[in-house]
Amino acid sequence: MPTTDSKRKKIILDLDTGIDDTLALSYVLASPEAELIGITGTYGNVVRDRGVANDLDLLSLFGRDDIPVFKGIDHPSTTDSFRVPPDSEIFHGANGTGNIEIPAHSTRQAETVGSVDFIIDSVRRHAKGELVVVPTGALTSIAAALEKAPDIIDKITIVLMGGSLTQPGNVGPFAEANINQDPEAADRVFSTQADITMIGLDVTTQVLMSREDTRALRSIGTEQGRFLADMTDYYIDISEKESGIYLGGCNLHDPLAAAVAIDPTLVTTFATNLMVETEGPQRGRTIGDPSRLLDPVKRTKVALGVDSERFTRRFMDRLLTLAAGRVQGGRPAAPSATRGEQDL
Amino acid sequence: MPTTDSKRKKIILDLDTGIDDTLALSYVLASPEAELIGITGTYGNVVRDRGVANDLDLLSLFGRDDIPVFKGIDHPSTTDSFRVPPDSEIFHGANGTGNIEIPAHSTRQAETVGSVDFIIDSVRRHAKGELVVVPTGALTSIAAALEKAPDIIDKITIVLMGGSLTQPGNVGPFAEANINQDPEAADRVFSTQADITMIGLDVTTQVLMSREDTRALRSIGTEQGRFLADMTDYYIDISEKESGIYLGGCNLHDPLAAAVAIDPTLVTTFATNLMVETEGPQRGRTIGDPSRLLDPVKRTKVALGVDSERFTRRFMDRLLTLAAGRVQGGRPAAPSATRGEQDL
Repeated sequence: MPTTDSKRKKIILDLDTGIDDTLALSYVLASPEAELIGITGTYGNVVRDRGVANDLDLLSLFGRDDIPVFKGIDHPSTTDSFRVPPDSEIFHGANGTGNIEIPAHSTRQAETVGSVDFIIDSVRRHAKGELVVVPTGALTSIAAALEKAPDIIDKITIVLMGGSLTQPGNVGPFAEANINQDPEAADRVFSTQADITMIGLDVTTQVLMSREDTRALRSIGTEQGRFLADMTDYYIDISEKESGIYLGGCNLHDPLAAAVAIDPTLVTTFATNLMVETEGPQRGRTIGDPSRLLDPVKRTKVALGVDSERFTRRFMDRLLTLAAGRVQGGRPAAPSATRGEQDL
Repeated sequence: MPTTDSKRKKIILDLDTGIDDTLALSYVLASPEAELIGITGTYGNVVRDRGVANDLDLLSLFGRDDIPVFKGIDHPSTTDSFRVPPDSEIFHGANGTGNIEIPAHSTRQAETVGSVDFIIDSVRRHAKGELVVVPTGALTSIAAALEKAPDIIDKITIVLMGGSLTQPGNVGPFAEANINQDPEAADRVFSTQADITMIGLDVTTQVLMSREDTRALRSIGTEQGRFLADMTDYYIDISEKESGIYLGGCNLHDPLAAAVAIDPTLVTTFATNLMVETEGPQRGRTIGDPSRLLDPVKRTKVALGVDSERFTRRFMDRLLTLAAGRVQGGRPAAPSATRGEQDL
């Protein structure tokens, strides 16, 4: 078990794992100032149970079988079931990790308690600001937690990957994929008074991982490094092939949200009150809510600027440290890696 | 003729006059730190020739027959003619001034030189930053000027009323009315390297004029005050009746653009590279251009925050001064008014 350090930021990752979810998980595991207290599984890039199986295998791969995994709601709040959209399967592969097998197989199961209750209990157990919930998929379980336990609304801190305010969507001209999975749930989350930072396409499309980066990961010579490199190469290839605009690598959507949860200074934000459109061609669009425009209190911090150089350098430093097996219990074991971090 | 003061900011208003255009013109005439060197007439709220006739009458009303008026292009760059959209006629009245007659009739005509050439010549004659062009209608003539004289692109400063980045549109969910008049021209303007500040619905819907303000204008007891009050009451009434969301008054769209041209500190801006969508239901939408997202140079400053209290107080102070006939040659004649301005 890792040493619990009260100064380390507690993190819950709400993942639909997913290539960039895997990279976000890796980043958090390699971050000395963060403690991952649990993974909650949602749906989106993959069905929930596939994502949860991936989470368990990934934790096994990185020697972190101490971290519990919880199952969330497995379908949108407005439907009875969920099928992975064709685009998600194209971008993340049928297995969620770019059709590259995770080189570890966990025998663990998800916890019996569900993600909604785990999130509620965790928020209640921690002081305000101590814990950050990082959703990187559909917001169905997050909305359900806020509805089931309204007392946590004033206490929860959410840094979510999703939405797009100043750039077009990535599933059509308006909607971003995560929000689009359950626009009604997302709208309910944004309509609350919760402390939300939105890490959307505005900034995540500005941070890239390139083939040079995957070469560096592979050259570490470990199975972790090879797996992360092979999986990410799939993501870069498919981004080059399928994206309308290819900017030289794959976008680090979920890792940026995880990084901002740990260090909010990586982005500059615009405070506003958002809504999610649920009707017509704009279904899934995140946009300012005109009816709350004059409200002096702005509920959501939308990231519009990102220090991409600082983030991508830190991201690669940590992934290389993790791939080299130099992270123990969430802390880099090698002094050199620690020093490297401090320089960033 | 007004005294020419080299420290006063030179302004060209490119108007489709229009109720809020009339208020913007009034504001500039009452601003001691601005010199209106010309009005160029575009189309939008009204047809070009109606707007130009209104401009001439308004200049006569305010005793400023020394300011030249120029005719711009009278239809979109993609069509052969222009008809006022029904919504524009509803919001501005058939005559552009809320069906209230301007209590002055000019015998002047527009200049023989057209607005495109006047804008080009004016930019060439002034040092960079000395002159600001303020479009408050369709951008057709502005696009034409930049295309006819590419040498002015690096020298022109544009502060335009139009677009919407973080709020829904006002002609459908996506488009703002001015940009929607000629999306292709607007897209060409945003694609240049010109120094552009966009004063869109993001901020203009945050600044209001109320019935209390029109009562104050009327109580001045002059025909100018009565006219501005009656015209604006029409605008407030129609905003209450026709706007999806009524926030207690009419929006000061064009006046805010004029005010920011004179004093950029009234808004906070987000620098980005914009495009205007020209196809599909999103035709007329202003949105970040993904292909220029990683360009380190950001061409357009989009206003996202506004000091509404400072602006609306200054706006009403100046309008009351103008309505009281205490502005001579663009400078308040009464010392008290000058002192009032300096306090703001």
